[in-house]
Amino acid sequence: MTTPDQLLQALQDEIEQNTYGKHPAELYEPIRYIMSLSGKRLRPLMTLMAAALYTDEWRKALKPAQAVEVFHNFTLMHDDIMDCAPLRRGQPTVHEKWNANIAILSGDVMLVRAYDLLLEVDGDRLKRVIKRFNETAAAVCEGQQLDMNFETRWDVTEAEYLNMIRLKTSVLLGFALELGGIVAGADEEATTLLYEAGVSMGIGFQLKDDLLDVYGDPAKFGKQVGGDIIANKKTFLLIEALERAEDSAKTELDKWVSEKEFDKEEKVKAVTAIYDSLKIRTFTEQKITEHFDKGFDCLERLQAEPARKEPLLSFVHQLVEREN
Amino acid sequence: MTTPDQLLQALQDEIEQNTYGKHPAELYEPIRYIMSLSGKRLRPLMTLMAAALYTDEWRKALKPAQAVEVFHNFTLMHDDIMDCAPLRRGQPTVHEKWNANIAILSGDVMLVRAYDLLLEVDGDRLKRVIKRFNETAAAVCEGQQLDMNFETRWDVTEAEYLNMIRLKTSVLLGFALELGGIVAGADEEATTLLYEAGVSMGIGFQLKDDLLDVYGDPAKFGKQVGGDIIANKKTFLLIEALERAEDSAKTELDKWVSEKEFDKEEKVKAVTAIYDSLKIRTFTEQKITEHFDKGFDCLERLQAEPARKEPLLSFVHQLVEREN
Repeated sequence: MTTPDQLLQALQDEIEQNTYGKHPAELYEPIRYIMSLSGKRLRPLMTLMAAALYTDEWRKALKPAQAVEVFHNFTLMHDDIMDCAPLRRGQPTVHEKWNANIAILSGDVMLVRAYDLLLEVDGDRLKRVIKRFNETAAAVCEGQQLDMNFETRWDVTEAEYLNMIRLKTSVLLGFALELGGIVAGADEEATTLLYEAGVSMGIGFQLKDDLLDVYGDPAKFGKQVGGDIIANKKTFLLIEALERAEDSAKTELDKWVSEKEFDKEEKVKAVTAIYDSLKIRTFTEQKITEHFDKGFDCLERLQAEPARKEPLLSFVHQLVEREN
Repeated sequence: MTTPDQLLQALQDEIEQNTYGKHPAELYEPIRYIMSLSGKRLRPLMTLMAAALYTDEWRKALKPAQAVEVFHNFTLMHDDIMDCAPLRRGQPTVHEKWNANIAILSGDVMLVRAYDLLLEVDGDRLKRVIKRFNETAAAVCEGQQLDMNFETRWDVTEAEYLNMIRLKTSVLLGFALELGGIVAGADEEATTLLYEAGVSMGIGFQLKDDLLDVYGDPAKFGKQVGGDIIANKKTFLLIEALERAEDSAKTELDKWVSEKEFDKEEKVKAVTAIYDSLKIRTFTEQKITEHFDKGFDCLERLQAEPARKEPLLSFVHQLVEREN
C-alpha cells in the first residue's frame, strides 16, 4: 500500500521535472516560479489518492494530477493580476516580479500545458476527461467573475455566495477526486461520489477559511486575524451579518463597512462583536459541519476496499481539522 | 461539389449559433462581441476547404474549424490588452468596452471553449488533434512574447523576425489546414504538406502586410499608408533597412526612428526614400514570392482529386493577390 507521503513525494518529483518550455524565457520562467512557490499540492494529491483507491498503478495519474495543479496555479496567476495582489505565498506575484503582460501570456501558456498533461490519459477516457476538465475550468472562471461582481454589491444572498464559492474553488476539488477515479477505471457511481465529495468538502473548506479569518487562533492561523474584515471582503460571515442585522446592529455594521478611515484593530473588534451578537459563528460552524458531513457521507458510500479508503479518509479528516 | 461560398455560409451559421455560455453575462458577452466583429473567417475556412479536399462530409469539420476561429479571437482579445489597442476592426476592443479584468477572464474561457469545440473530433483522432493544437497554441504565445521583446530591441535579425512571425501568425494557418486534413482522414504525408503550405503562405501574408503598409495603393489599402513607419513598428522592411543601412543612410534612419516629435508625412516620405535607396522593396517582394512559391509547391504536391483542389488553389491565389 502506498502512503500519502509517498504519493506526495512522487508528485513533487514529477512537478520539479517539468520545464513547461524553454524559449522565450520570459514566457516559461514565471510558470516555473509560481509552480515552485511552496503550495500544499492539495488538489493533485487528491487525484492520486482517488486513483490509489482503485489501482496500484496510481503513477499513471501523475501527469493528469499535475494538470490540475498547473491549472490551479494558472488561475492564481491571472486572479492575482485582477486582484492587484502584490504577494502570493509570501513572494512577489508574477505581474509584480515581471509585469502584467507577461503574467497574462505566461498564464495562457500554462492553461495549454495543463491540457498537454491531460493527454497522458488513456485514449478511450481522454474525451470524457477533457470534457469534464473544460466544464470545471469554465466554472472556475464563472466563479471568479461572480466574485469580482460581488465586490461592488451589498445585496449578495447566502445562496449566491455559496454558488460563487462552489464555482470558484469547490468544483476543482471535485474534479481533482473524480479525475483520479476516472484514470483508475472507477465506475460512474464512484466517480460521481468522488466529485460530490470534493465539491462539498471544498465548500466546507472555504467557509472554514472565512471563519478562521475572524475566529482563528492567532498563534496557529499564520495570517492576520480579521484581514477580511479590514478589507470589507464579502465572506460568508459578512453576507450573513448584512442579511440578519437589524436596528442598531445594522446601523453599526453599515457604518463600519462604509468607513474609509478607521483604526484596523477597532474595526475588527467592533465587527466581530456584531457577528457575535448575531450568532454568526455558530451558524457558520453549522454550515461547515453540514458540508463536511455531506462530503464524508459521499466518501462512506464509495465502493472501495476499506484498507484503501482509510488513507484518503484520514487525509481528509486532517484537512477538516486544520486551523490555518 | 461544395463552393467556398457555401462553406463560408455554413461556418457563419455555425458561429452565430454558439452562445459560449450564459451566466455571468460579463464573461460571455465579450466573447459573442469579438466573434461578431466582421472577420474574414480565413482560418476556419481553410480548415473546411482542406477537409473538403478529401470528403463530402466536411460538415464534421465545422466545430473543429470554429475552434480555430475562437482560438484566434482569444489571442486577439489578450493581445489587445497587452498592446493597449483601443480599436479592433474599427470597434472598441473588449478591454476598452468593458475592462482589462473582463478581457483577461473572458479570454481564458474562450480558450477553454476552443477545446470544447475540438472535442467534436472523432475519438481516435482526438488525441492527435489536441496535441497539435497545444503545440500550435504554445507557439502562438511564444511568438507574441518575442514580438513584445522586439519592441525594445534594435538588433533584431532577419532570421529572428521570420521566426517570430512564423510562431505568432503562420503556424495557426498551418494548423488550420492540417486540422481539416486530419478530420477528413487524410494521410500523414498530406497533413504534413497542408501544414507546411499554411506556414509558408502565412509568412508570405505577413511579409506582404509589412510591404503594403509602405508600398500599398492608398486607394485600395484601407489603412493609413506608412502607419508602421510612424509607429517605428519592427517590420521586415525596417529590420532589413537597419541591417543594411550604412554611412549617411544609417545616420538618417537612426535619426528618424529615435525622433520623438516629427511630422508624420515627412517621416513616412523620408524612411520610404531610405527603403528605396536600399532596394528593400524588391528584396521584400522576392521573399514574399519565395514563401508563396513554397506554399504553392506544397499544395501542388498534395495528392487529391484535381477538381477538389481547384477551389482551394484559387482561394489561396485570391489571398495572394489581395492588396489590402
